[in-house]
Amino acid sequence: MGAIVTLTSDFGLGDSYVAAMKGVILSINPGARLVDICHDIEPQNIRQAAFILSAACHFFPKGTIHLVVVDPGVGTDRRAIVLRTPMAEFVAPDNGVLSYVIQQSSAKPLAYKAESREAELEPELEAVAITNPEFWRSPVSPTFHGRDIFAPVAAWLSRGFPPASFGEAVTLLKVLPLSRPHRASGGLVVGHVIHIDNFGNLITDIRGDDLPAETEGISVRVGGYKITGLRRAYGEGEGLLALIGSNGYLEVAVRQGNAADWLSAKVGDEVRVKTGGR
Amino acid sequence: MGAIVTLTSDFGLGDSYVAAMKGVILSINPGARLVDICHDIEPQNIRQAAFILSAACHFFPKGTIHLVVVDPGVGTDRRAIVLRTPMAEFVAPDNGVLSYVIQQSSAKPLAYKAESREAELEPELEAVAITNPEFWRSPVSPTFHGRDIFAPVAAWLSRGFPPASFGEAVTLLKVLPLSRPHRASGGLVVGHVIHIDNFGNLITDIRGDDLPAETEGISVRVGGYKITGLRRAYGEGEGLLALIGSNGYLEVAVRQGNAADWLSAKVGDEVRVKTGGR
Amino acid sequence: MGAIVTLTSDFGLGDSYVAAMKGVILSINPGARLVDICHDIEPQNIRQAAFILSAACHFFPKGTIHLVVVDPGVGTDRRAIVLRTPMAEFVAPDNGVLSYVIQQSSAKPLAYKAESREAELEPELEAVAITNPEFWRSPVSPTFHGRDIFAPVAAWLSRGFPPASFGEAVTLLKVLPLSRPHRASGGLVVGHVIHIDNFGNLITDIRGDDLPAETEGISVRVGGYKITGLRRAYGEGEGLLALIGSNGYLEVAVRQGNAADWLSAKVGDEVRVKTGGR
Repeated sequence: MGAIVTLTSDFGLGDSYVAAMKGVILSINPGARLVDICHDIEPQNIRQAAFILSAACHFFPKGTIHLVVVDPGVGTDRRAIVLRTPMAEFVAPDNGVLSYVIQQSSAKPLAYKAESREAELEPELEAVAITNPEFWRSPVSPTFHGRDIFAPVAAWLSRGFPPASFGEAVTLLKVLPLSRPHRASGGLVVGHVIHIDNFGNLITDIRGDDLPAETEGISVRVGGYKITGLRRAYGEGEGLLALIGSNGYLEVAVRQGNAADWLSAKVGDEVRVKTGGR
Repeated sequence: MGAIVTLTSDFGLGDSYVAAMKGVILSINPGARLVDICHDIEPQNIRQAAFILSAACHFFPKGTIHLVVVDPGVGTDRRAIVLRTPMAEFVAPDNGVLSYVIQQSSAKPLAYKAESREAELEPELEAVAITNPEFWRSPVSPTFHGRDIFAPVAAWLSRGFPPASFGEAVTLLKVLPLSRPHRASGGLVVGHVIHIDNFGNLITDIRGDDLPAETEGISVRVGGYKITGLRRAYGEGEGLLALIGSNGYLEVAVRQGNAADWLSAKVGDEVRVKTGGR
Repeated sequence: MGAIVTLTSDFGLGDSYVAAMKGVILSINPGARLVDICHDIEPQNIRQAAFILSAACHFFPKGTIHLVVVDPGVGTDRRAIVLRTPMAEFVAPDNGVLSYVIQQSSAKPLAYKAESREAELEPELEAVAITNPEFWRSPVSPTFHGRDIFAPVAAWLSRGFPPASFGEAVTLLKVLPLSRPHRASGGLVVGHVIHIDNFGNLITDIRGDDLPAETEGISVRVGGYKITGLRRAYGEGEGLLALIGSNGYLEVAVRQGNAADWLSAKVGDEVRVKTGGR
């Protein structure tokens, strides 16, 4: 059974770019099995791509190769990287698009260095900077490394070449300053909307683990509304509701409706949870 | 050759949900061959999903497994089901999303029970309620049975486990009250728009079989317009035209244009066909 | 390893049509490996499909079969064709959708006959008109040859049947009058926007080869703006910029922005390049 290679990009499905990458991969590894994660990332929205990638990649078999091309810095001096975690391999620009993956593959919170926007990798994570042109298409277009560098590297990885084939080991990778909720006085947890899904559900950076096990008496404030209590499922209750979603984050939804439209909400909006007490 | 598993959902292609289901399936059956039917079903539009599924599934090889996740009741007490027809197997919530499939796999019109919104299956159709958690992911998210119940069940089905592995036989399934044309005096057949496709073609519930073999003198009234005669193809004639489309239904189209925009038409609109005579 | 069959259409991803074609192909050749090029071609936009197909197909392995269904003339007397080039096979309506592929597979510029809108194929290119119904689904819907003629022919091709199986050789195919830049006095090259991609980049018909090797002093005028010099990558400079894109064409882009929106540009707009001197 050929290796699985997933693809994530901001290329959209209305053009030739995704197919060009798939053609390149199949030309190098005809046995590769290609699975799209998402190509409708907003143009150059690294944060959104980082989130969606991390929400999907954990469900793939061990050893899956994830190709990620959201790359506003293509053709500049940003690095290209291969990252190997205990579960999977990633081929991507070094621009923070692997931030959630790195965080979730790490035992400790990332030590984010604000000046360099980098974090040190834990020893379980192996990364190389892609510098060996032997595996690239030639000539390389300065505007489409997805086709000429990332796709070929992913394809050769899928044929069993180890990460070290493609360049030198690195231990610092660019990461985004991932939003995290903080605790305020009066039993408040203050977080933010980090993603809005196709149903208009607001996904926050507040994890179920950030809330007390006893959710009785919890209230959620967002966009001027107050929601009392947590539900289990979207189909429970009426109107606005809050629940712990399938990725473990607190979500705000509307039964059979669109919470983002209802609240005119957007990524970054504050969400305040009052736990227990009054 | 691995089993074919198709996927239909209202998850859209702009998020991680479809990929998560695919990862789950490939983790259980690495040989499964995944084919998307459609993920751009309007959120929670069971009727639209039922139609699109039925318009595609008959063209797949015998034994194909169709996974359908349009599931506004996820996490509530709606049942999850496996349906086996002589041609294929379906894994879906029991909410009517298989209505057209069940109707088209049945020799007689469905006996729809308005009070329970159910129909009795004919003996050729075998259904089970999915109740055996042995095949599910654990824990099951109350908001994403697609990933945690439906996808694993489809994957295990694709590995050859019979439907009975997953739960108890049932003989009554939820169905939608499918719109059907009726005959009125004066040689009228009165139907409705049941689907609007990507070209803006209006697909009605009137089948070619509902019309006389001699279509000379037929006229179609929709949205205040009258169309005279039937054409064979979209490229014949000018302006608004009517024809029998590729699924056997009467369609209203505009040559090189968009009939839904032209007529401001929507699903449910009435379409009146006057057959023969004057 | 099964043959690769790509699919390009204007069917969109919101309906059953693409899946129906895939089901038909897999029913005939269960080993076929299906790859989507693009299904979001604007309805009936033959020129756009021709461009996107040509921008993707060259990256697939030799022998790939490309199925193209953008077919406003379906059911009329337009021909259906199989085209074999040294690199690939194409199954498509004979309506110009293979124009770029034919041009790029030819040593000389196409001799376009304005009266018949056809061009004579060079001997390296083999074409047949699809006339042998033995390989079609039966009955053929006059409105969906994609499902009933093109998909089955592509599937049988992928099983190794030679093009001659499907009909008689032809040497003249319909082509579009492809826009080409012309030279004007004062070192001007006058071209046009031929495509706008997902990022809003304007792709012109001016190839890097049409410009002097020394690009110092070049200026590009489009939509009332003047851009000085060429950049290498989208991430260089600020605001509007021009560069040679990944398919070898001059492009106009905005760093981290959308040039088509900025300039209210559309396909067909004039782009004037002043080379060298002043």
